[in-house]
Amino acid sequence: MNGENFALSEQIVSSSYIRQGSQARRSHEQLIRLLLEQGKCPEEGWSESTVELFLNELAVMDSNNFLGNCGVGEREGRVASSLVARRHYRLIHGIGRSGDIAAIQPKAAGSSLLNKLTNSVVLDILKLTGVRSVASCFVVPMATGMSLTLCFLTLRHRRPKARYIIWPRIDQKSCFKSMITAGFEPVVVENALEGDELRTDLEAVERKIEALGAENILCVHSTTSCFAPRVPDRIEELAAMCAKYNIPHIVNNAYGVQSSKCMHLIQQGARVGRIDAFVQSLDKNFMVPVGGAIIAGFEESFIQEISKMYPGRASASPSLDVLITLLTLGANGYKKLLAERKEIYSFLVQELKSLASAHGERLLHTPHNPISLAMSLDGLEAKSNGAVTQLGSMLFTRQVSGARVIPLGKEQTISGHTFRGFMSHSESYPCPYLNAASAVGITREDVTLCMKRLDKCLKTLKKNQNVTTPTSPVPPAGPEDPPLLYETELKIDQRCSRSFTLLLSAI
Amino acid sequence: MNGENFALSEQIVSSSYIRQGSQARRSHEQLIRLLLEQGKCPEEGWSESTVELFLNELAVMDSNNFLGNCGVGEREGRVASSLVARRHYRLIHGIGRSGDIAAIQPKAAGSSLLNKLTNSVVLDILKLTGVRSVASCFVVPMATGMSLTLCFLTLRHRRPKARYIIWPRIDQKSCFKSMITAGFEPVVVENALEGDELRTDLEAVERKIEALGAENILCVHSTTSCFAPRVPDRIEELAAMCAKYNIPHIVNNAYGVQSSKCMHLIQQGARVGRIDAFVQSLDKNFMVPVGGAIIAGFEESFIQEISKMYPGRASASPSLDVLITLLTLGANGYKKLLAERKEIYSFLVQELKSLASAHGERLLHTPHNPISLAMSLDGLEAKSNGAVTQLGSMLFTRQVSGARVIPLGKEQTISGHTFRGFMSHSESYPCPYLNAASAVGITREDVTLCMKRLDKCLKTLKKNQNVTTPTSPVPPAGPEDPPLLYETELKIDQRCSRSFTLLLSAI
Amino acid sequence: MNGENFALSEQIVSSSYIRQGSQARRSHEQLIRLLLEQGKCPEEGWSESTVELFLNELAVMDSNNFLGNCGVGEREGRVASSLVARRHYRLIHGIGRSGDIAAIQPKAAGSSLLNKLTNSVVLDILKLTGVRSVASCFVVPMATGMSLTLCFLTLRHRRPKARYIIWPRIDQKSCFKSMITAGFEPVVVENALEGDELRTDLEAVERKIEALGAENILCVHSTTSCFAPRVPDRIEELAAMCAKYNIPHIVNNAYGVQSSKCMHLIQQGARVGRIDAFVQSLDKNFMVPVGGAIIAGFEESFIQEISKMYPGRASASPSLDVLITLLTLGANGYKKLLAERKEIYSFLVQELKSLASAHGERLLHTPHNPISLAMSLDGLEAKSNGAVTQLGSMLFTRQVSGARVIPLGKEQTISGHTFRGFMSHSESYPCPYLNAASAVGITREDVTLCMKRLDKCLKTLKKNQNVTTPTSPVPPAGPEDPPLLYETELKIDQRCSRSFTLLLSAI
Amino acid sequence: MNGENFALSEQIVSSSYIRQGSQARRSHEQLIRLLLEQGKCPEEGWSESTVELFLNELAVMDSNNFLGNCGVGEREGRVASSLVARRHYRLIHGIGRSGDIAAIQPKAAGSSLLNKLTNSVVLDILKLTGVRSVASCFVVPMATGMSLTLCFLTLRHRRPKARYIIWPRIDQKSCFKSMITAGFEPVVVENALEGDELRTDLEAVERKIEALGAENILCVHSTTSCFAPRVPDRIEELAAMCAKYNIPHIVNNAYGVQSSKCMHLIQQGARVGRIDAFVQSLDKNFMVPVGGAIIAGFEESFIQEISKMYPGRASASPSLDVLITLLTLGANGYKKLLAERKEIYSFLVQELKSLASAHGERLLHTPHNPISLAMSLDGLEAKSNGAVTQLGSMLFTRQVSGARVIPLGKEQTISGHTFRGFMSHSESYPCPYLNAASAVGITREDVTLCMKRLDKCLKTLKKNQNVTTPTSPVPPAGPEDPPLLYETELKIDQRCSRSFTLLLSAI
Repeated sequence: MNGENFALSEQIVSSSYIRQGSQARRSHEQLIRLLLEQGKCPEEGWSESTVELFLNELAVMDSNNFLGNCGVGEREGRVASSLVARRHYRLIHGIGRSGDIAAIQPKAAGSSLLNKLTNSVVLDILKLTGVRSVASCFVVPMATGMSLTLCFLTLRHRRPKARYIIWPRIDQKSCFKSMITAGFEPVVVENALEGDELRTDLEAVERKIEALGAENILCVHSTTSCFAPRVPDRIEELAAMCAKYNIPHIVNNAYGVQSSKCMHLIQQGARVGRIDAFVQSLDKNFMVPVGGAIIAGFEESFIQEISKMYPGRASASPSLDVLITLLTLGANGYKKLLAERKEIYSFLVQELKSLASAHGERLLHTPHNPISLAMSLDGLEAKSNGAVTQLGSMLFTRQVSGARVIPLGKEQTISGHTFRGFMSHSESYPCPYLNAASAVGITREDVTLCMKRLDKCLKTLKKNQNVTTPTSPVPPAGPEDPPLLYETELKIDQRCSRSFTLLLSAI
Repeated sequence: MNGENFALSEQIVSSSYIRQGSQARRSHEQLIRLLLEQGKCPEEGWSESTVELFLNELAVMDSNNFLGNCGVGEREGRVASSLVARRHYRLIHGIGRSGDIAAIQPKAAGSSLLNKLTNSVVLDILKLTGVRSVASCFVVPMATGMSLTLCFLTLRHRRPKARYIIWPRIDQKSCFKSMITAGFEPVVVENALEGDELRTDLEAVERKIEALGAENILCVHSTTSCFAPRVPDRIEELAAMCAKYNIPHIVNNAYGVQSSKCMHLIQQGARVGRIDAFVQSLDKNFMVPVGGAIIAGFEESFIQEISKMYPGRASASPSLDVLITLLTLGANGYKKLLAERKEIYSFLVQELKSLASAHGERLLHTPHNPISLAMSLDGLEAKSNGAVTQLGSMLFTRQVSGARVIPLGKEQTISGHTFRGFMSHSESYPCPYLNAASAVGITREDVTLCMKRLDKCLKTLKKNQNVTTPTSPVPPAGPEDPPLLYETELKIDQRCSRSFTLLLSAI
Repeated sequence: MNGENFALSEQIVSSSYIRQGSQARRSHEQLIRLLLEQGKCPEEGWSESTVELFLNELAVMDSNNFLGNCGVGEREGRVASSLVARRHYRLIHGIGRSGDIAAIQPKAAGSSLLNKLTNSVVLDILKLTGVRSVASCFVVPMATGMSLTLCFLTLRHRRPKARYIIWPRIDQKSCFKSMITAGFEPVVVENALEGDELRTDLEAVERKIEALGAENILCVHSTTSCFAPRVPDRIEELAAMCAKYNIPHIVNNAYGVQSSKCMHLIQQGARVGRIDAFVQSLDKNFMVPVGGAIIAGFEESFIQEISKMYPGRASASPSLDVLITLLTLGANGYKKLLAERKEIYSFLVQELKSLASAHGERLLHTPHNPISLAMSLDGLEAKSNGAVTQLGSMLFTRQVSGARVIPLGKEQTISGHTFRGFMSHSESYPCPYLNAASAVGITREDVTLCMKRLDKCLKTLKKNQNVTTPTSPVPPAGPEDPPLLYETELKIDQRCSRSFTLLLSAI
Repeated sequence: MNGENFALSEQIVSSSYIRQGSQARRSHEQLIRLLLEQGKCPEEGWSESTVELFLNELAVMDSNNFLGNCGVGEREGRVASSLVARRHYRLIHGIGRSGDIAAIQPKAAGSSLLNKLTNSVVLDILKLTGVRSVASCFVVPMATGMSLTLCFLTLRHRRPKARYIIWPRIDQKSCFKSMITAGFEPVVVENALEGDELRTDLEAVERKIEALGAENILCVHSTTSCFAPRVPDRIEELAAMCAKYNIPHIVNNAYGVQSSKCMHLIQQGARVGRIDAFVQSLDKNFMVPVGGAIIAGFEESFIQEISKMYPGRASASPSLDVLITLLTLGANGYKKLLAERKEIYSFLVQELKSLASAHGERLLHTPHNPISLAMSLDGLEAKSNGAVTQLGSMLFTRQVSGARVIPLGKEQTISGHTFRGFMSHSESYPCPYLNAASAVGITREDVTLCMKRLDKCLKTLKKNQNVTTPTSPVPPAGPEDPPLLYETELKIDQRCSRSFTLLLSAI
């Protein structure tokens, strides 16, 4: 309420109480003032009531919420369903304009503020998490892959002759497809095996550059966060190489914001060499729903060029989610989450190590990967063909999610390119294995439960080469057990096994 | 609740009441059954409680909501903010997979169902609104422009040699940029002036095709819904031409779903010639927030090809919005909205006509445009240079949104291409004018208020060549007046005028 | 946002857009200002966004939402569940203080404002609906019965010797119990049969007064709204009699606010005689959840005396509900609802009349009852003993709610007092009958559906004296049929019949 | 979704994923099953999604949510505002029936279940927290005072001749008024001073009983939780006395559920003597909004008698709040809250002790009071008359809530009875003091902040007899400081002082 309304209230309720209420309101306004003034993520998280107060304030500034508005255009922010209006806090106009996803909308001052502030707060977080010299960024309501595509499409205008993208292999379809969709030819560079780790083969990259000719190469497309035993690319060396050959460099930093190591690689790369843009997922780094990414870089003009490439308005939903989340967590809250993640990573290392040794397997030694781990499945594979796949299906059935099993020798063709040893980032990795990761938001309990269930599955598979129906009735579900009470577990596991195989081939 | 729980409830509350409650639950289930069985938009809209019940049911099927789940992956649908979780009904996993935006997610059966059902319900609506032979479609969380880009990128793989896109001119930046972003060269074909209408110059199109060579042309990119006095392209003839020359044809049907005429054009085009895909905006046709589009076509395989081009997962937010909206409205509710729109279109024609004649202007005769209208501003322009722009700013200040004024002779360069007479779809349209549209969701009150305010503005501008500060105090805002109480209206109007000019150049 | 924050926003988004947003905010503030200034129900209803903005503003004024508050008391408005906090808009402190339910709370300026404003807005509505000279009222979070009890308890302090309450009979348990609970002895005065109507027997009332002695009588407890064929008490005459004998007069106006006739009776009663307080239900008159009432009167001091009788704080929930509802509807919206109710009453009269005559029954002639109607069930009763009760159960099973059947000759003892002919307000009403009412919020469709189902039930009962299992399968539920698909309707109907009999005896 | 719908879903999304989703749904159903089966508070709290799923299930069972319902009654659960419907989860019918607040409603099976389950879960919690032999209880939507009134009104019917209630003095208005409102004459028994503690004067009580005659006494009305230096009544001895004289005994256990000591007193009282009912506040014990209470007892029939005294239906809102809260917390969560409270009590003891000694005051020795503490203000009072009151106002201004200051010698007349030394539970307590309490939900931070601010206030008051305007500008608010930035603190403090004095007299 404004001053006038507070004054009127004092005639209804004693003025000292109203005055205190008005002072209380000011303290919310103060938080908003700091945000508007500095454009930074607040140190301490806001209460939900401050967040909602702020979003309501933004909403009343959009023309669709003007009490006296009359609209005779084709896009007036009208909403048919009140459920929909409510879930978007009545912010309906999206972000950006036809010319530029970062542009201000005359009809929607509130949504425009939301957009600007989100980009500003996110930039602050990128700095805090390690890329101190980042110059500009924006949130885009597309997942990482499509955002990479947008970067490549932008580069095309700078390098009209270029046809190739140099890409140290990483076995994730969307990375590969981001280049195909943009209309370029990916040049896959196999990784080098160093100990257990798969790392960038720098010499092979350089050989490719020289073979193809720098001017024919759109960019180098490198990756930080990835599944072990692959480790983040040697970003520093690649950046230097890009600078040397004058080739753009786009980094896929998918879920790297959560790891100081990944962020450090990018900061260093930009310092010693060339990084044109780096792209990160919103959902994987900030615990929001799938569907947004941040495109960031060290030169404001290039980032603007990309934002101007997006034709038309865009959904404000991912921006809204990440803004709510960061205001609620505050910089301290987010840092605390990252610290916990790191700690649980160590816990996971230790747990997987002892589990592996109990089952005659070993934790692969991948010290350069700060998030993902891999445990060999040599013994399991040796015992029975197909047991590795079956383990995957058993874990799925037991509600262990995210624990991928990687059998040997899969082959997959994507857009005409055949990958041998698909999913393992290598044509012939020495052993099958299982992945587990400590990603932001994981809890100690996740790890404990996962280990317990994994242990049981491995025991079951070992005990019984041809796993048969358990004769004893399935015990009631306890908190440490998934609540799946299939009559004949095996049957289900087998059925799942089939869909699991399909699933593997679809990753 | 399941049968067991209803039985237990009968021991707490008399069984005949519980049984009636359980029957009542069944009636919600019946509605859901029909939806799952037929995949169609329900005839009658659902109550909000059925909609929310259904969404909650979907959510419990996603692994992030499993009570016993433990996650050790890098993307587990974790959410940091409960405000965010709640506004997405705890559906966090988005839609699609790395390979395909239409693919099923093993971790998210509920979100996958949501995705499939949304596409199916939307397909049903496209049929109902006139494109009866549409074969396939999908919702994509990108606005129309970026969705067109995706279509063009997909075509590139079919026509690797093609560099040009034939495009009958329409002055909306995002349409033009959708081609630029995809890396193609737009070939702008100026429109022909027929009476007041600007229509497709078919001969010019054919000349361009022959001049460039069909094999060098990626596609023809035509448009249905647009601002008067431009009218929808001659889709039928263009489709026939595309068939004749074996050139793909992509139709920008931005807000055409709401008009049976636009939909009929597409249906006819596909019948007599070739339409590969048509793209429409979600927000403009279905009254949902900005940020989604539907890509549809007559050949399932091509539409799948496009959906497979989207690299990675995507936001489920636009799908969720349109599904909620269509379930709430029902087919009948949506048809009712369209009927009202049509009726108000006639009302707007009539109102604008009499207003125009009262001010010595005229309603341009554009019978082929079923949504947008234009009123000449000859007299105003004659009186004073700049009055047209000032009218725009005055309307903006008075909370009339969507009423665009189009002055003569603007020039704008977009991505290296210069448009003379920008915003008017023509290098030299005979007169300046003002647009108003009857789009879905408009109310009779919108029209009445707009006319009243427009009338006042025109009078003010006429009375006073150099509009001066009103001497009398501004009267209190009534329902028919915008609640803008600026001290010195002129100053504001002038300031707005400046930003309005910027604004014009940014459309 | 305050001025400072708007100014900061102008540095982020162009100032003319922000300024417009800030003006838009002012228009919400204007509505709030009017409310605070006048304390009246707004003419036009507010949008949901204004309502929520206002409630959020109130909430930030309560100490539990102060950002810097520290609490070391035993009642600090702490909330354990965020679902609970959210559903109360974070207004946790309730209303009133230990001394007085209308008192201001130092810890909760916002909740105190809410309480004051609700009472003020409700008072305005009581005036608008016909009791123009009402002086004071307050909302109490207790249903009508308990609120009547509170009035009687207050009167005890004024008339310590009085033991009796004179009560023209109305067969609703809670009315009777309100007196018993307060510790008084109800003196039941049987109604007089005038035509079909049951009306106050004024002479009998006066005889009782004289017999018992005015000083021994706590008050006369009369009733307006009631089920036909009883009609509202002769309030005017009773009020005059109370004035004459100097006896307090409490009117149970349960759902009478919705009827101008009932309100007029009270207004006239107060004008010509004595009414100390009149009590009305919130849910029945204002379409809010059950649980609140308004205690109103013509002398402020007595109403305050009652409000001071409530020991301790109270739930703000009913106040919140009615305030939200009245702000959303506006005075015009509420008046429109009442006009519709009246219109549907006429429709119901006409429909029931023709249905009755089609089945050889008749609509009882009860012109003094403006809400409830009764249709005789003579023929049905004649045919079969128990058919009347069975009709009730059949209607219940078919989801016709609120259509009560009243068999003859029920006897019920409540707190030691035996009512012959219970439910019919009379020891020996001439015929059994069925009630239907046109209450606020009813739709034309309710009436149509009810008539259709009632017609079917009557036909079924007539066709088949001993209604037997339908041999044909039950047809699928259409919109005109309740979705009850019992296998053997009869069995259920019979089972229901039993619980229905219990039910009757419990009303 | 039911089985049929899951089967249909398998045709849309692969069956193994759907099956897993369906299993996941079962795990929610299992939790609900346990609740229905056992009627107990779940050990572990439910997730919000289970809670909401359950509430939605209840709502669909109420007739106002039947899709095919038609209503022709006067109370059909219609809701005008969707905001209101939503905040009550569409549970509109309230609880109870005209005859009994615990009765089942035919129109509302879901609300009836809610009511029964809430009472059952709450009973379980009363047992868990120490009153193991409690037999029955129910939630009533009235605060503690009015609930006590209802108990007294019920007793009247058992003891029609009784006029007095024996009441060991406790200075809270609502306790006193609960007896006045019920129409009885409170017989105030002054407390005995034992060390610093004020405890029940058992001999005085017995003298009163004998003087008045047991048959003239309605009941003894004792209290557990209270402000120090008063301590809980000697419930055991009073219960024994009541048994001996055959007098009913009602215990006001306002916020005693949170203290095992208070609960133990009641359990013991019932074991060795007589307790007819004990009443506790919902908000103070369960962190829900103000407005509900639990009436509990050791004999089911008497508790039913009370529930049957409530005439008419009642708000379900308090029941809903406490059910949501307890399901969300689980028994373990609630026990954890209580354990924390106890721990912080010790912390508060220690902090207050050292603060007191630093300021030459002392913590009063009140070991029998498990929640509230008192620190002497002798020195402050000695220095300046009025300083004690001013301290109260300063704390209020600094957002320290709940820290009451008790000056000497206040006199207050309530309903004709004059209390000397009001607020101190004693006609002449030896010293003025300040109260602070460790109540459920308090945090360690609350205590720390309170001590800091209290320390500052005491220093300011000491330094400057006539506190003057601070000359230095008020520093910016930090987290340890309240955000009150008054220009002239003193003025405000003085103004507050006045309202604070009023405030004191109103408690």
